Amino acid sequence: MKKPLILITNDDSINAKGLRKLISLMRPLGDVVVISTVDVMSAKGHSITTTPTLKVTPVQEMPGYREFVCNGTPVDCVKAGYQWLLDKAPDLVVSGINHGSNASTNVIYSGTMAAVIEACMDGIDGIGFSLDSYAADADFDHLDAPITAITKEVIAHGLPKGVCLNVNFPYRREEPIRGIRVCRQAQGRWVEAYNDFVDEHGNNCLKLGGAFICDDDGEDTDYWAINHNYISLVPTHYDLTAMQYLDKMSRFEKVMNVL
Amino acid sequence: MKKPLILITNDDSINAKGLRKLISLMRPLGDVVVISTVDVMSAKGHSITTTPTLKVTPVQEMPGYREFVCNGTPVDCVKAGYQWLLDKAPDLVVSGINHGSNASTNVIYSGTMAAVIEACMDGIDGIGFSLDSYAADADFDHLDAPITAITKEVIAHGLPKGVCLNVNFPYRREEPIRGIRVCRQAQGRWVEAYNDFVDEHGNNCLKLGGAFICDDDGEDTDYWAINHNYISLVPTHYDLTAMQYLDKMSRFEKVMNVL
Repeated sequence: MKKPLILITNDDSINAKGLRKLISLMRPLGDVVVISTVDVMSAKGHSITTTPTLKVTPVQEMPGYREFVCNGTPVDCVKAGYQWLLDKAPDLVVSGINHGSNASTNVIYSGTMAAVIEACMDGIDGIGFSLDSYAADADFDHLDAPITAITKEVIAHGLPKGVCLNVNFPYRREEPIRGIRVCRQAQGRWVEAYNDFVDEHGNNCLKLGGAFICDDDGEDTDYWAINHNYISLVPTHYDLTAMQYLDKMSRFEKVMNVL
Repeated sequence: MKKPLILITNDDSINAKGLRKLISLMRPLGDVVVISTVDVMSAKGHSITTTPTLKVTPVQEMPGYREFVCNGTPVDCVKAGYQWLLDKAPDLVVSGINHGSNASTNVIYSGTMAAVIEACMDGIDGIGFSLDSYAADADFDHLDAPITAITKEVIAHGLPKGVCLNVNFPYRREEPIRGIRVCRQAQGRWVEAYNDFVDEHGNNCLKLGGAFICDDDGEDTDYWAINHNYISLVPTHYDLTAMQYLDKMSRFEKVMNVL
Protein backbone atom coordinates (compact mmCIF):
# COMPACT_ATOMS: atom_id res chain seq x y z
CA MET A 1 0.00 0.00 0.00
CA LYS A 2 1.24 3.46 -0.93
CA LYS A 3 2.40 5.57 2.00
CA PRO A 4 0.02 8.42 2.79
CA LEU A 5 1.27 12.01 2.61
CA ILE A 6 0.67 13.64 5.99
CA LEU A 7 0.83 17.42 6.49
CA ILE A 8 1.46 18.50 10.10
CA THR A 9 0.94 21.96 11.50
CA ASN A 10 0.17 23.82 14.69
CA ASP A 11 0.32 27.24 16.35
CA ASP A 12 2.83 26.72 19.19
CA SER A 13 5.96 27.25 17.00
CA ILE A 14 8.29 24.75 15.35
CA ASN A 15 10.05 23.80 18.57
CA ALA A 16 6.96 23.16 20.70
CA LYS A 17 7.11 19.88 22.55
CA GLY A 18 3.61 18.90 21.42
CA LEU A 19 4.45 19.43 17.73
CA ARG A 20 7.70 17.46 18.02
CA LYS A 21 5.79 14.61 19.67
CA LEU A 22 3.19 14.60 16.88
CA ILE A 23 5.94 14.53 14.23
CA SER A 24 7.56 11.52 15.94
CA LEU A 25 4.21 9.69 15.94
CA MET A 26 3.34 10.48 12.32
CA ARG A 27 6.65 9.60 10.67
CA PRO A 28 6.13 5.82 11.00
CA LEU A 29 2.68 6.22 9.37
CA GLY A 30 3.57 8.02 6.14
CA ASP A 31 5.61 10.62 4.29
CA VAL A 32 5.53 13.76 6.40
CA VAL A 33 5.62 17.47 5.56
CA VAL A 34 5.67 19.86 8.54
CA ILE A 35 4.70 23.52 8.09
CA SER A 36 4.61 25.19 11.45
CA THR A 37 4.15 28.77 12.55
CA VAL A 38 7.40 30.61 13.32
CA ASP A 39 6.02 32.09 16.52
CA VAL A 40 3.48 31.08 19.10
CA MET A 41 0.18 32.12 17.51
CA SER A 42 -2.43 31.15 20.08
CA ALA A 43 -6.09 32.00 19.56
CA LYS A 44 -5.75 33.07 15.93
CA GLY A 45 -8.94 31.24 14.97
CA HIS A 46 -9.48 31.06 11.22
CA SER A 47 -7.40 34.20 10.60
CA ILE A 48 -5.49 34.33 7.30
CA THR A 49 -2.81 36.68 6.01
CA THR A 50 -4.10 38.79 3.15
CA THR A 51 -1.14 41.20 3.04
CA PRO A 52 1.72 40.22 0.70
CA THR A 53 4.06 39.33 3.55
CA LEU A 54 3.75 35.55 3.78
CA LYS A 55 6.98 33.53 3.69
CA VAL A 56 7.57 29.78 3.78
CA THR A 57 11.13 28.84 4.76
CA PRO A 58 12.68 25.35 4.58
CA VAL A 59 14.20 24.02 7.81
CA GLN A 60 15.27 20.47 6.97
CA GLU A 61 14.71 17.77 4.38
CA MET A 62 15.43 14.04 4.21
CA PRO A 63 13.78 11.11 2.40
CA GLY A 64 10.12 10.97 3.46
CA TYR A 65 10.40 14.05 5.66
CA ARG A 66 10.39 17.79 5.00
CA GLU A 67 10.08 20.62 7.51
CA PHE A 68 9.20 24.28 6.93
CA VAL A 69 8.19 27.34 8.92
CA CYS A 70 5.66 29.93 7.82
CA ASN A 71 5.38 33.43 9.28
CA GLY A 72 1.56 33.34 9.17
CA THR A 73 -1.24 31.61 11.02
CA PRO A 74 -1.97 27.87 11.17
CA VAL A 75 -4.54 28.29 8.35
CA ASP A 76 -1.89 30.06 6.25
CA CYS A 77 0.42 27.08 6.88
CA VAL A 78 -2.16 24.65 5.54
CA LYS A 79 -3.29 26.80 2.61
CA ALA A 80 0.23 27.68 1.46
CA GLY A 81 1.26 24.10 2.17
CA TYR A 82 -0.95 22.33 -0.29
CA GLN A 83 -2.00 25.16 -2.57
CA TRP A 84 1.53 26.44 -3.20
CA LEU A 85 4.39 24.39 -1.68
CA LEU A 86 3.32 20.82 -2.43
CA ASP A 87 2.62 19.57 -5.92
CA LYS A 88 -0.35 17.54 -4.68
CA ALA A 89 -2.83 17.64 -1.82
CA PRO A 90 -1.89 15.63 1.27
CA ASP A 91 -3.95 12.59 2.24
CA LEU A 92 -4.26 13.82 5.80
CA VAL A 93 -3.73 17.03 7.78
CA VAL A 94 -2.95 16.66 11.49
CA SER A 95 -2.59 19.61 13.83
CA GLY A 96 -1.17 19.72 17.34
CA ILE A 97 -0.49 18.39 19.78
CA ASN A 98 -1.78 21.66 21.15
CA HIS A 99 -0.62 22.86 24.54
CA GLY A 100 -4.10 23.56 25.92
CA SER A 101 -7.59 22.14 25.51
CA ASN A 102 -9.70 22.90 22.45
CA ALA A 103 -12.77 21.28 23.93
CA SER A 104 -16.10 23.11 24.23
CA THR A 105 -16.20 26.59 22.66
CA ASN A 106 -12.41 26.83 22.76
CA VAL A 107 -12.67 25.29 19.27
CA ILE A 108 -14.00 28.66 18.03
CA TYR A 109 -10.75 30.49 18.94
CA SER A 110 -8.44 27.63 18.02
CA GLY A 111 -5.86 27.93 15.26
CA THR A 112 -5.09 24.23 15.76
CA MET A 113 -8.61 23.28 14.79
CA ALA A 114 -8.94 26.03 12.15
CA ALA A 115 -6.08 24.41 10.22
CA VAL A 116 -7.94 21.10 10.24
CA ILE A 117 -11.26 22.73 9.30
CA GLU A 118 -9.55 24.48 6.39
CA ALA A 119 -8.36 21.12 5.06
CA CYS A 120 -11.84 19.68 5.62
CA MET A 121 -13.36 22.43 3.47
CA ASP A 122 -11.06 21.24 0.69
CA GLY A 123 -12.08 17.61 1.08
CA ILE A 124 -8.93 16.51 2.94
CA ASP A 125 -9.24 14.36 6.09
CA GLY A 126 -8.03 16.15 9.20
CA ILE A 127 -7.53 15.60 12.93
CA GLY A 128 -6.71 18.16 15.62
CA PHE A 129 -5.06 16.84 18.79
CA SER A 130 -4.95 18.93 21.97
CA LEU A 131 -3.87 18.26 25.55
CA ASP A 132 -5.63 19.79 28.54
CA SER A 133 -2.45 21.47 29.81
CA TYR A 134 -0.89 24.76 28.78
CA ALA A 135 2.50 23.84 30.25
CA ALA A 136 5.35 24.13 27.72
CA ASP A 137 6.99 21.07 29.31
CA ALA A 138 3.78 19.05 29.62
CA ASP A 139 4.13 15.27 29.47
CA PHE A 140 2.79 13.91 26.16
CA ASP A 141 3.99 10.31 26.47
CA HIS A 142 0.62 8.90 27.53
CA LEU A 143 -0.78 10.00 24.14
CA ASP A 144 1.42 7.84 21.91
CA ALA A 145 -0.91 4.85 21.66
CA PRO A 146 -4.25 6.66 21.23
CA ILE A 147 -2.89 9.17 18.68
CA THR A 148 -1.41 6.36 16.62
CA ALA A 149 -4.60 4.30 16.83
CA ILE A 150 -6.96 7.18 15.91
CA THR A 151 -4.72 8.26 13.02
CA LYS A 152 -4.42 4.71 11.66
CA GLU A 153 -8.21 4.38 11.76
CA VAL A 154 -8.62 7.61 9.74
CA ILE A 155 -5.94 6.57 7.23
CA ALA A 156 -7.53 3.14 6.82
CA HIS A 157 -11.20 4.14 6.53
CA GLY A 158 -11.36 7.92 6.04
CA LEU A 159 -13.87 10.39 7.44
CA PRO A 160 -17.26 11.40 6.07
CA LYS A 161 -17.11 14.29 3.59
CA GLY A 162 -17.19 17.62 5.42
CA VAL A 163 -16.28 16.14 8.80
CA CYS A 164 -12.99 16.41 10.71
CA LEU A 165 -12.06 15.37 14.25
CA ASN A 166 -11.47 17.51 17.32
CA VAL A 167 -9.61 15.20 19.75
CA ASN A 168 -8.81 16.39 23.28
CA PHE A 169 -6.80 14.52 25.87
CA PRO A 170 -7.03 14.70 29.63
CA TYR A 171 -3.77 15.52 31.34
CA ARG A 172 -1.96 12.64 32.99
CA ARG A 173 -3.39 11.75 36.36
CA GLU A 174 -2.81 8.95 38.81
CA GLU A 175 -5.06 6.57 36.89
CA PRO A 176 -4.61 5.69 33.19
CA ILE A 177 -6.92 7.19 30.52
CA ARG A 178 -10.28 5.40 30.67
CA GLY A 179 -10.96 5.30 26.91
CA ILE A 180 -12.26 7.34 23.98
CA ARG A 181 -15.72 8.92 23.92
CA VAL A 182 -17.45 10.33 20.84
CA CYS A 183 -18.88 13.62 22.11
CA ARG A 184 -20.71 16.78 21.24
CA GLN A 185 -19.12 20.20 21.84
CA ALA A 186 -20.01 21.45 25.34
CA GLN A 187 -21.68 24.82 25.83
CA GLY A 188 -19.19 27.19 27.48
CA ARG A 189 -17.70 30.67 27.36
CA TRP A 190 -14.80 32.76 28.56
CA VAL A 191 -15.42 35.47 31.10
CA GLU A 192 -12.67 37.97 30.50
CA ALA A 193 -10.92 40.05 33.05
CA TYR A 194 -8.93 42.74 31.26
CA ASN A 195 -6.11 44.21 33.29
CA ASP A 196 -5.21 47.84 32.65
CA PHE A 197 -1.57 48.76 32.70
CA VAL A 198 0.78 51.42 31.33
CA ASP A 199 3.39 50.24 28.83
CA GLU A 200 6.97 51.52 28.45
CA HIS A 201 5.78 54.30 26.11
CA GLY A 202 3.23 55.57 28.64
CA ASN A 203 0.27 54.08 26.75
CA ASN A 204 -2.70 52.63 28.59
CA CYS A 205 -2.93 49.00 27.52
CA LEU A 206 -5.09 45.98 28.25
CA LYS A 207 -3.93 42.47 29.06
CA LEU A 208 -6.44 39.72 28.45
CA GLY A 209 -7.07 37.38 31.35
CA GLY A 210 -10.12 35.43 32.28
CA ALA A 211 -11.64 32.09 33.17
CA PHE A 212 -13.50 29.48 31.17
CA ILE A 213 -17.02 28.71 32.36
CA CYS A 214 -18.75 25.53 31.23
CA ASP A 215 -22.54 26.00 31.30
CA ASP A 216 -23.25 22.43 30.27
CA ASP A 217 -23.15 19.41 32.54
CA GLY A 218 -24.09 16.90 29.84
CA GLU A 219 -22.20 13.62 30.13
CA ASP A 220 -22.21 13.45 26.32
CA THR A 221 -19.91 16.50 26.03
CA ASP A 222 -16.20 16.84 25.35
CA TYR A 223 -15.74 18.95 28.47
CA TRP A 224 -17.25 16.22 30.67
CA ALA A 225 -15.11 13.56 28.98
CA ILE A 226 -11.71 15.17 29.51
CA ASN A 227 -12.63 16.08 33.06
CA HIS A 228 -13.45 12.42 33.74
CA ASN A 229 -10.20 11.14 32.26
CA TYR A 230 -11.58 10.12 28.86
CA ILE A 231 -10.29 11.20 25.46
CA SER A 232 -12.99 13.29 23.74
CA LEU A 233 -13.53 12.96 20.00
CA VAL A 234 -15.97 15.43 18.42
CA PRO A 235 -16.97 14.99 14.76
CA THR A 236 -16.65 18.61 13.65
CA HIS A 237 -17.97 20.48 10.62
CA TYR A 238 -17.98 24.04 9.31
CA ASP A 239 -21.67 24.57 8.69
CA LEU A 240 -22.70 27.22 11.20
CA THR A 241 -26.38 27.08 10.20
CA ALA A 242 -28.58 26.62 13.27
CA MET A 243 -30.67 24.07 11.33
CA GLN A 244 -33.24 23.60 14.09
CA TYR A 245 -34.24 27.25 13.74
CA LEU A 246 -34.52 27.46 9.96
CA ASP A 247 -38.28 26.99 9.97
CA LYS A 248 -38.77 29.24 12.99
CA MET A 249 -37.40 32.39 11.38
CA SER A 250 -40.04 33.06 8.73
CA ARG A 251 -41.12 36.22 10.57
CA PHE A 252 -37.95 37.79 9.17
CA GLU A 253 -39.13 37.11 5.63
CA LYS A 254 -42.14 39.31 6.35
CA VAL A 255 -40.46 42.40 7.82
CA MET A 256 -39.90 43.85 4.36
CA ASN A 257 -43.67 43.97 3.79
CA VAL A 258 -44.33 46.21 6.74
CA LEU A 259 -41.71 48.87 6.12
CA MET B 1 -39.88 51.82 26.52
CA LYS B 2 -36.23 52.09 27.51
CA LYS B 3 -33.84 52.68 24.63
CA PRO B 4 -31.70 49.63 23.84
CA LEU B 5 -27.92 49.90 24.09
CA ILE B 6 -26.44 48.92 20.71
CA LEU B 7 -22.75 48.09 20.27
CA ILE B 8 -21.49 48.45 16.68
CA THR B 9 -18.26 47.06 15.32
CA ASN B 10 -16.61 45.85 12.14
CA ASP B 11 -13.27 45.13 10.52
CA ASP B 12 -13.04 47.72 7.72
CA SER B 13 -11.75 50.56 9.97
CA ILE B 14 -13.58 53.45 11.63
CA ASN B 15 -13.97 55.44 8.42
CA ALA B 16 -15.36 52.67 6.23
CA LYS B 17 -18.47 53.69 4.33
CA GLY B 18 -20.34 50.56 5.41
CA LEU B 19 -19.67 51.18 9.11
CA ARG B 20 -20.71 54.83 8.87
CA LYS B 21 -23.94 53.78 7.14
CA LEU B 22 -24.68 51.24 9.88
CA ILE B 23 -24.06 53.89 12.56
CA SER B 24 -26.50 56.24 10.84
CA LEU B 25 -29.15 53.50 10.76
CA MET B 26 -28.69 52.41 14.39
CA ARG B 27 -28.69 55.81 16.08
CA PRO B 28 -32.47 56.31 15.69
CA LEU B 29 -33.01 52.87 17.27
CA GLY B 30 -31.08 53.20 20.53
CA ASP B 31 -28.09 54.46 22.45
CA VAL B 32 -25.04 53.58 20.39
CA VAL B 33 -21.45 52.68 21.28
CA VAL B 34 -19.09 52.13 18.34
CA ILE B 35 -15.83 50.22 18.82
CA SER B 36 -14.19 49.74 15.46
CA THR B 37 -10.83 48.36 14.40
CA VAL B 38 -8.20 51.02 13.72
CA ASP B 39 -7.09 49.35 10.51
CA VAL B 40 -8.68 47.19 7.87
CA MET B 41 -8.57 43.71 9.44
CA SER B 42 -10.14 41.48 6.80
CA ALA B 43 -10.30 37.71 7.27
CA LYS B 44 -9.24 37.72 10.92
CA GLY B 45 -11.87 35.10 11.81
CA HIS B 46 -12.23 34.61 15.55
CA SER B 47 -8.67 35.77 16.24
CA ILE B 48 -8.12 37.52 19.56
CA THR B 49 -5.15 39.48 20.92
CA THR B 50 -3.50 37.64 23.80
CA THR B 51 -0.41 39.86 23.99
CA PRO B 52 -0.62 42.85 26.37
CA THR B 53 -0.83 45.38 23.54
CA LEU B 54 -4.54 46.07 23.26
CA LYS B 55 -5.66 49.71 23.37
CA VAL B 56 -9.11 51.28 23.23
CA THR B 57 -9.06 54.97 22.31
CA PRO B 58 -12.02 57.38 22.47
CA VAL B 59 -12.85 59.24 19.24
CA GLN B 60 -16.00 61.21 20.07
CA GLU B 61 -18.80 61.33 22.60
CA MET B 62 -22.21 63.03 22.73
CA PRO B 63 -25.51 62.19 24.46
CA GLY B 64 -26.58 58.69 23.36
CA TYR B 65 -23.50 58.18 21.19
CA ARG B 66 -19.90 57.18 21.91
CA GLU B 67 -17.21 56.16 19.43
CA PHE B 68 -13.91 54.33 20.06
CA VAL B 69 -11.21 52.59 18.08
CA CYS B 70 -9.40 49.45 19.18
CA ASN B 71 -6.08 48.27 17.76
CA GLY B 72 -7.16 44.61 17.81
CA THR B 73 -9.54 42.40 15.88
CA PRO B 74 -13.34 42.68 15.69
CA VAL B 75 -13.66 40.06 18.46
CA ASP B 76 -11.29 42.12 20.63
CA CYS B 77 -13.54 45.15 19.99
CA VAL B 78 -16.59 43.27 21.26
CA LYS B 79 -14.86 41.59 24.20
CA ALA B 80 -13.09 44.72 25.41
CA GLY B 81 -16.27 46.68 24.68
CA TYR B 82 -18.60 44.99 27.08
CA GLN B 83 -16.17 43.20 29.39
CA TRP B 84 -14.03 46.27 30.08
CA LEU B 85 -15.22 49.58 28.58
CA LEU B 86 -18.97 49.47 29.28
CA ASP B 87 -20.40 49.09 32.73
CA LYS B 88 -23.13 46.78 31.43
CA ALA B 89 -23.64 44.39 28.52
CA PRO B 90 -25.28 45.87 25.42
CA ASP B 91 -28.74 44.70 24.39
CA LEU B 92 -27.58 44.11 20.83
CA VAL B 93 -24.31 43.80 18.90
CA VAL B 94 -24.40 44.69 15.20
CA SER B 95 -21.42 44.31 12.90
CA GLY B 96 -20.86 45.67 9.41
CA ILE B 97 -21.95 46.71 6.97
CA ASN B 98 -19.10 44.63 5.64
CA HIS B 99 -17.59 45.46 2.28
CA GLY B 100 -17.80 41.94 0.85
CA SER B 101 -20.10 38.95 1.19
CA ASN B 102 -19.98 36.68 4.22
CA ALA B 103 -22.32 34.16 2.66
CA SER B 104 -21.42 30.47 2.34
CA THR B 105 -18.12 29.44 3.96
CA ASN B 106 -16.90 33.04 3.92
CA VAL B 107 -18.50 33.15 7.37
CA ILE B 108 -15.63 30.96 8.64
CA TYR B 109 -12.99 33.62 7.81
CA SER B 110 -15.15 36.59 8.72
CA GLY B 111 -14.23 38.96 11.53
CA THR B 112 -17.59 40.69 11.00
CA MET B 113 -19.46 37.53 11.90
CA ALA B 114 -16.93 36.45 14.56
CA ALA B 115 -17.76 39.63 16.51
CA VAL B 116 -21.45 38.70 16.43
CA ILE B 117 -20.77 35.05 17.33
CA GLU B 118 -18.68 36.21 20.29
CA ALA B 119 -21.63 38.22 21.60
CA CYS B 120 -23.93 35.26 20.96
CA MET B 121 -21.71 33.03 23.13
CA ASP B 122 -22.29 35.54 25.93
CA GLY B 123 -26.05 35.51 25.47
CA ILE B 124 -26.27 38.86 23.65
CA ASP B 125 -28.36 39.17 20.47
CA GLY B 126 -26.26 39.90 17.40
CA ILE B 127 -26.59 40.59 13.69
CA GLY B 128 -23.87 40.74 11.04
CA PHE B 129 -24.66 42.72 7.88
CA SER B 130 -22.57 42.31 4.72
CA LEU B 131 -22.86 43.56 1.15
CA ASP B 132 -21.81 41.50 -1.85
CA SER B 133 -19.34 44.13 -3.04
CA TYR B 134 -15.75 44.75 -1.94
CA ALA B 135 -15.71 48.29 -3.37
CA ALA B 136 -14.72 50.93 -0.80
CA ASP B 137 -17.21 53.33 -2.40
CA ALA B 138 -20.00 50.78 -2.79
CA ASP B 139 -23.55 52.10 -2.69
CA PHE B 140 -25.29 51.12 0.57
CA ASP B 141 -28.44 53.24 0.25
CA HIS B 142 -30.67 50.38 -0.89
CA LEU B 143 -30.04 48.70 2.50
CA ASP B 144 -31.58 51.36 4.74
CA ALA B 145 -35.08 49.90 4.90
CA PRO B 146 -34.21 46.19 5.31
CA ILE B 147 -31.49 46.82 7.93
CA THR B 148 -33.83 48.97 9.97
CA ALA B 149 -36.67 46.43 9.67
CA ILE B 150 -34.52 43.39 10.60
CA THR B 151 -32.94 45.22 13.54
CA LYS B 152 -36.30 46.44 14.85
CA GLU B 153 -37.61 42.89 14.69
CA VAL B 154 -34.65 41.61 16.75
CA ILE B 155 -34.99 44.43 19.29
CA ALA B 156 -38.73 43.78 19.62
CA HIS B 157 -38.73 39.99 19.87
CA GLY B 158 -35.13 38.84 20.42
CA LEU B 159 -33.39 35.78 19.00
CA PRO B 160 -33.34 32.22 20.33
CA LYS B 161 -30.54 31.58 22.85
CA GLY B 162 -27.33 30.63 21.06
CA VAL B 163 -28.45 31.95 17.67
CA CYS B 164 -27.30 35.07 15.82
CA LEU B 165 -27.99 36.29 12.29
CA ASN B 166 -25.72 36.35 9.24
CA VAL B 167 -27.42 38.76 6.82
CA ASN B 168 -26.00 39.26 3.32
CA PHE B 169 -27.23 41.73 0.75
CA PRO B 170 -27.06 41.51 -3.03
CA TYR B 171 -25.37 44.46 -4.68
CA ARG B 172 -27.62 46.99 -6.32
CA ARG B 173 -28.83 45.87 -9.72
CA GLU B 174 -31.34 47.19 -12.21
CA GLU B 175 -34.26 45.62 -10.35
CA PRO B 176 -35.05 46.24 -6.66
CA ILE B 177 -34.27 43.59 -4.01
CA ARG B 178 -36.86 40.82 -4.22
CA GLY B 179 -37.21 40.16 -0.48
CA ILE B 180 -35.63 38.34 2.46
CA ARG B 181 -35.02 34.59 2.48
CA VAL B 182 -34.17 32.51 5.55
CA CYS B 183 -31.36 30.27 4.28
CA ARG B 184 -28.81 27.67 5.17
CA GLN B 185 -25.06 28.31 4.65
CA ALA B 186 -24.04 27.15 1.15
CA GLN B 187 -21.22 24.66 0.66
CA GLY B 188 -18.26 26.47 -0.91
CA ARG B 189 -14.52 26.98 -0.72
CA TRP B 190 -11.71 29.25 -1.85
CA VAL B 191 -9.21 27.96 -4.37
CA GLU B 192 -6.08 29.94 -3.69
CA ALA B 193 -3.57 31.11 -6.20
CA TYR B 194 -0.48 32.29 -4.35
CA ASN B 195 1.72 34.66 -6.31
CA ASP B 196 5.46 34.56 -5.61
CA PHE B 197 7.32 37.84 -5.56
CA VAL B 198 10.48 39.37 -4.12
CA ASP B 199 9.97 42.18 -1.59
CA GLU B 200 12.15 45.30 -1.13
CA HIS B 201 14.46 43.37 1.22
CA GLY B 202 15.07 40.62 -1.32
CA ASN B 203 12.81 38.13 0.49
CA ASN B 204 10.68 35.68 -1.42
CA CYS B 205 7.08 36.39 -0.41
CA LEU B 206 3.62 35.12 -1.23
CA LYS B 207 0.56 37.17 -2.07
CA LEU B 208 -2.78 35.46 -1.53
CA GLY B 209 -5.14 35.49 -4.47
CA GLY B 210 -7.83 33.08 -5.46
CA ALA B 211 -11.43 32.53 -6.41
CA PHE B 212 -14.48 31.39 -4.49
CA ILE B 213 -16.14 28.23 -5.74
CA CYS B 214 -19.69 27.37 -4.66
CA ASP B 215 -20.23 23.59 -4.81
CA ASP B 216 -23.87 23.84 -3.84
CA ASP B 217 -26.75 24.75 -6.16
CA GLY B 218 -29.44 24.48 -3.47
CA GLU B 219 -32.10 27.16 -3.78
CA ASP B 220 -32.33 27.16 0.02
CA THR B 221 -28.79 28.57 0.39
CA ASP B 222 -27.49 32.04 1.14
CA TYR B 223 -25.28 31.97 -1.95
CA TRP B 224 -28.27 31.26 -4.20
CA ALA B 225 -30.30 34.00 -2.51
CA ILE B 226 -27.84 36.86 -2.96
CA ASN B 227 -27.14 35.77 -6.52
CA HIS B 228 -30.88 35.95 -7.25
CA ASN B 229 -31.29 39.42 -5.75
CA TYR B 230 -32.69 38.31 -2.37
CA ILE B 231 -31.36 39.24 1.06
CA SER B 232 -30.09 36.05 2.75
CA LEU B 233 -30.62 35.58 6.48
CA VAL B 234 -28.90 32.55 8.05
CA PRO B 235 -29.65 31.66 11.69
CA THR B 236 -26.09 31.01 12.86
CA HIS B 237 -24.68 29.20 15.88
CA TYR B 238 -21.28 28.23 17.24
CA ASP B 239 -21.76 24.53 17.81
CA LEU B 240 -19.44 22.86 15.30
CA THR B 241 -20.55 19.34 16.25
CA ALA B 242 -21.53 17.37 13.14
CA MET B 243 -24.57 16.00 15.01
CA GLN B 244 -25.67 13.69 12.21
CA TYR B 245 -22.40 11.74 12.58
CA LEU B 246 -22.33 11.39 16.37
CA ASP B 247 -23.78 7.89 16.28
CA LYS B 248 -21.69 6.85 13.28
CA MET B 249 -18.31 7.32 14.96
CA SER B 250 -18.41 4.55 17.57
CA ARG B 251 -15.63 2.71 15.74
CA PHE B 252 -13.29 5.33 17.21
CA GLU B 253 -14.32 4.32 20.73
CA LYS B 254 -12.97 0.84 19.98
CA VAL B 255 -9.52 1.67 18.58
CA MET B 256 -8.01 1.79 22.06
CA ASN B 257 -8.89 -1.90 22.59
CA VAL B 258 -6.89 -3.10 19.63
CA LEU B 259 -3.60 -1.31 20.28
